[in-house]
Amino acid sequence: MAFKATLLTLYPDMFPGPLGHSLSGRALEKDLWNLETRQIRDFATDKHRSVDDTPAGGGAGMVLRADILAKAIDAAASSEDPRPRILMSPRGLPFTQERAHELAAGPGAIIICGRFEGVDQRVIDGRDLEEVSIGDYILSGGEIGAITMLDAIIRLIPGVMGNMESADTESFETGLLEHPHYTRPAEFEGRAIPEVLTSGNHKKIHDWRMAEAERLTRERRPDLWDAYMADEDDVD
Amino acid sequence: MAFKATLLTLYPDMFPGPLGHSLSGRALEKDLWNLETRQIRDFATDKHRSVDDTPAGGGAGMVLRADILAKAIDAAASSEDPRPRILMSPRGLPFTQERAHELAAGPGAIIICGRFEGVDQRVIDGRDLEEVSIGDYILSGGEIGAITMLDAIIRLIPGVMGNMESADTESFETGLLEHPHYTRPAEFEGRAIPEVLTSGNHKKIHDWRMAEAERLTRERRPDLWDAYMADEDDVD
Repeated sequence: MAFKATLLTLYPDMFPGPLGHSLSGRALEKDLWNLETRQIRDFATDKHRSVDDTPAGGGAGMVLRADILAKAIDAAASSEDPRPRILMSPRGLPFTQERAHELAAGPGAIIICGRFEGVDQRVIDGRDLEEVSIGDYILSGGEIGAITMLDAIIRLIPGVMGNMESADTESFETGLLEHPHYTRPAEFEGRAIPEVLTSGNHKKIHDWRMAEAERLTRERRPDLWDAYMADEDDVD
Repeated sequence: MAFKATLLTLYPDMFPGPLGHSLSGRALEKDLWNLETRQIRDFATDKHRSVDDTPAGGGAGMVLRADILAKAIDAAASSEDPRPRILMSPRGLPFTQERAHELAAGPGAIIICGRFEGVDQRVIDGRDLEEVSIGDYILSGGEIGAITMLDAIIRLIPGVMGNMESADTESFETGLLEHPHYTRPAEFEGRAIPEVLTSGNHKKIHDWRMAEAERLTRERRPDLWDAYMADEDDVD
């Protein structure tokens, strides 16, 4: 069974969007993953097909109703469906490369794209939704977050990337940011490729790349650097 | 002058993609922001229109050439163009809500969508590119990162959101994750709306929401909580 993504959204036309191109688009054509969208609005009960209401306690914005979203979730997936139920939400736990690997190895995901000010907490509790955030910024809705998360997952599904080796040395796979890259031409506007990279000495090239990855991580991401050093200490 | 996004990409058809819908799509129609795409491949010099080459020093993947990307950048923006030149890259500094506000208040951005294993370091140095990451995971290319970053920016451009008040209490704007939301119906599968929210007592509602926001942030994001407490200490 290929990885199956079921999207619950008010904007089904946003999908597959960029996921229909390039690597994930070719994988979609080859049935290496499947995409299904469900229109939450189809589960509205009034003649205006409204899905939201004003927040209890007052305040700006509108809140997506628990009863309507619960019906949409129940129609999309039985209680035996093994796929995780993910709510894209800035309040969620940060999405990581590790979680992308876990999800890519599983049967898929039911992904709920929030909109408005938020989603009624009772459907999050009642349907055991896992809140996931792709970063510390606010998007207009969950759809673009879902597309981002799916792109990170899909490329890790076996058979999607041509050269699996390519994933192993990337940023985050080693706990470090990736070293700088160079390619032809040998000189660009007076800037040469670092000599070590054209030396043919594999040990020196490896050491230079590791030192550069460590330097970049230390300079740009002290948070990752601290986590990396803590892991190193555990090994010793 | 409206905010202008110039995208340098190998996949111009991915744009506007999801940005053509909903909030950002309506803003695009109203010329509250503008979008321009440039095909990097148009600046290739050989008959195969190749833009990449093998990494100096060996290893997996391909590297986007400095000379070709530099020509694409120079054609897209003069040296007097005041817009920041952003390279979407997992090695970049994390994109934040604060940076979204800064960019939304400015003239726009020139956004370079990396592909393959990476971009030759000499064009990053030579064209003073700012590397920006939307999260600690790897995408198939910079396009989806660019769409995500633009969505966060566009909603903050004056006139795009109907109710500017709505942005102020969101996650990250206060340094805390947002409190839970509730709306009608009063009861959902035996779960009631917390009594305080229907009390009509605005002081109590405010205090409850703040306490919940603090609790969620402490539980889910100790990193944000520590930063929030450090800021509080500065104020005292």
